Amino acid sequence: MNIRFYNARILTMQDDKLLWGELHVKDNRISYVGKDAPEGIAFDREIDCMGNILMPGFKNAHTHSGMTLMRTYADGLPLQEWLTTKIFPLEAKMSGEEVALLSKLAILEYLTSGVTAVFDMYLTPETIADAFYEAGMRVVQVSGINKFGPTLEVLEERYNKLNGVNDLTSFMLGFHAEYTCDRKLLEKIAELAHKYKAPVYTHMSETECEVKECVDRYGMTPGVFLDSLGMFDFGGGGYHCVHFEDGDIEVFKKRGLSVVTNPGSNTKLASGIAPLKRFLQEGINVAIGTDGPSSNNCLDMFKEMMLVFSLANIREKDALAIDAVDILKMATVNGAKAMFLHDCDTLSAGKYADLIMIDMHMPNMQPENDVIRNIVYSGSKQNVKMTMIGGKILYEDGKFNIGTDPEVIYKEANAILKRLT
Amino acid sequence: MNIRFYNARILTMQDDKLLWGELHVKDNRISYVGKDAPEGIAFDREIDCMGNILMPGFKNAHTHSGMTLMRTYADGLPLQEWLTTKIFPLEAKMSGEEVALLSKLAILEYLTSGVTAVFDMYLTPETIADAFYEAGMRVVQVSGINKFGPTLEVLEERYNKLNGVNDLTSFMLGFHAEYTCDRKLLEKIAELAHKYKAPVYTHMSETECEVKECVDRYGMTPGVFLDSLGMFDFGGGGYHCVHFEDGDIEVFKKRGLSVVTNPGSNTKLASGIAPLKRFLQEGINVAIGTDGPSSNNCLDMFKEMMLVFSLANIREKDALAIDAVDILKMATVNGAKAMFLHDCDTLSAGKYADLIMIDMHMPNMQPENDVIRNIVYSGSKQNVKMTMIGGKILYEDGKFNIGTDPEVIYKEANAILKRLT
Repeated sequence: MNIRFYNARILTMQDDKLLWGELHVKDNRISYVGKDAPEGIAFDREIDCMGNILMPGFKNAHTHSGMTLMRTYADGLPLQEWLTTKIFPLEAKMSGEEVALLSKLAILEYLTSGVTAVFDMYLTPETIADAFYEAGMRVVQVSGINKFGPTLEVLEERYNKLNGVNDLTSFMLGFHAEYTCDRKLLEKIAELAHKYKAPVYTHMSETECEVKECVDRYGMTPGVFLDSLGMFDFGGGGYHCVHFEDGDIEVFKKRGLSVVTNPGSNTKLASGIAPLKRFLQEGINVAIGTDGPSSNNCLDMFKEMMLVFSLANIREKDALAIDAVDILKMATVNGAKAMFLHDCDTLSAGKYADLIMIDMHMPNMQPENDVIRNIVYSGSKQNVKMTMIGGKILYEDGKFNIGTDPEVIYKEANAILKRLT
Repeated sequence: MNIRFYNARILTMQDDKLLWGELHVKDNRISYVGKDAPEGIAFDREIDCMGNILMPGFKNAHTHSGMTLMRTYADGLPLQEWLTTKIFPLEAKMSGEEVALLSKLAILEYLTSGVTAVFDMYLTPETIADAFYEAGMRVVQVSGINKFGPTLEVLEERYNKLNGVNDLTSFMLGFHAEYTCDRKLLEKIAELAHKYKAPVYTHMSETECEVKECVDRYGMTPGVFLDSLGMFDFGGGGYHCVHFEDGDIEVFKKRGLSVVTNPGSNTKLASGIAPLKRFLQEGINVAIGTDGPSSNNCLDMFKEMMLVFSLANIREKDALAIDAVDILKMATVNGAKAMFLHDCDTLSAGKYADLIMIDMHMPNMQPENDVIRNIVYSGSKQNVKMTMIGGKILYEDGKFNIGTDPEVIYKEANAILKRLT
């Protein structure tokens, strides 16, 4: 499919400038971005953007898609109790087929929020990869191995089996968290990282309690302890990173690790406010994730961007703790960097056509004092007019195109809920 | 117009139960809510709700609608500097006609967020009343008098002239803030309150600096000082109420005053987090407002509800600091109470037909573990399928019906921006 977008304002995210012009898509990649479009091309579809904005899709850099089942299930408990008494027992009953269906529910929601790729950690990577591929959505999966399962052999097998299969899905090394793995398991994961020269990702320093227990166990904070095992010799990063100490920051700088912040989850579970301003000042790559819908409870990158600036202002007592442009980078290019999606970061010729259209013909986007600030401070899912992934429009004007009827997905999700709870 | 809604789940907000049934509207009021609808009525329109939720519209209990002009204008300054160096000089140039147009821009945005009434404080109450009336939207205006204007005579004239004109618009006594009025002016306003036995509203204890300066001037915090003048002998309330001390809380309890919290503004301007849990524990009526779009920067009650629970959790270090049902009450019935809109609070026969339809056929509302929590924790403007005010549908499936073309409003708002900045 050759698609032409014209009359567009294009925010390439190579810089913070808006470019009036055209963007062309050939099959799954961008073939042209600029003011002086080549003529004589036969397009399958030409879309008048009417001055609306084209920009890279959001990268949701930490989520557990299949947890849509637990949206508003067991709300109001602190993290440890919520996990051990409510979530783990329910997850033990979920089949791979159910996880796939629940992931498709999440995919619908990502599309409404302009998310074009997610960094997903959940139970059955094989069925999750199938669900995303069938829907046409990009996913980077990461292992959530812990002392309850799966085995290291399964992890390595998945790493080999789930990469290189298609353009949309991949799989990276990771583990659930320091506190759900024993030392021996962590050492083995670090060995795998060395064998494959691969980055590793994990939940890290989400709660004060978790950090304290790690220090009690190993005499080091989680970031420092994990690095001492050689875990991050080939990069990677941490999800949450709320309670960081100087040593953790040094590790992240030395190893070039990414912080993925999850403000919706950290406030929902009362975990705290991450020191994002300091991370940025230290030059650390900061991306944004929603976390799973059970601890948020939605999958909305506009909400997360808003919480990033709101919470940073409160933490720093500064009305401009983090600039809007920096927040938009976190939600797009920094996320792509954290997820090693180097071909999905900006809008330029040769990159994958993972892009969204922001509807400026809505009252919350007017008047136009500063368009980027309007998107970050005032934008919402209501402004997502279109979401394209790999050159295919999966969501447009409120209609989905993922090969499955949304009503069937809703009905089945409620049936699973009935069966398992 | 007689309108019938059927196949609806109705959240009357008289309690937290959902009722499957019908809701009938006759002219501007609700004529029936229940399961066994009367038959034989001739309706002008019958709407199949397909299981979607009908609930009272949100009450935006503190805003400055005309400030849409300054959305993302001069972002990032602390409150005092922002007001004195940027906002006041620009406001001095705005005409009543321009304020009316900019209020209509705000009205469009309110409708997309399911807001059916606003508590508005801005420059030219006459033209604002006209704008809301023309659009068909409900507004309770409140005076923002201060030492720079208008005169007390104008305030009293407006109080008499702008009440009792129609069902949609009214006007209440108020002033900008303690720190923008001198003692003599405040005493005169208190006299007016006594003359008309009327409640009074004002910005109160928004910043630490403001409270400190009031204590320096009068030896009392703002709530206590204003009450000592007899200001609240007939009720009223405060906007923001971030930095409250015990004395202020006692005044609010004794006088039955309402707190209107503005979390989006308080984080945007780094003012702090209001002690809402304590207010609720003390039995104070707490409502929610967006504040103006210049200090937020949007007019979205879902965002404000989300910030209420997020910030309370952080402040209280408690994952369930405030329950979702309490937050939904704040955004609806408590707002109606604060604004003296006693006929707009719940869905029951005889009340004004100020109601919204929440689209449950969207991925962020599924599955249905807990519908109310889904609305508060996961809901967004995208879920507002319809907004009805006084029996008239002003917004439905993304289309507006306020008598003015939105594109004309956007164009004119940008023209004003060009003229004045």
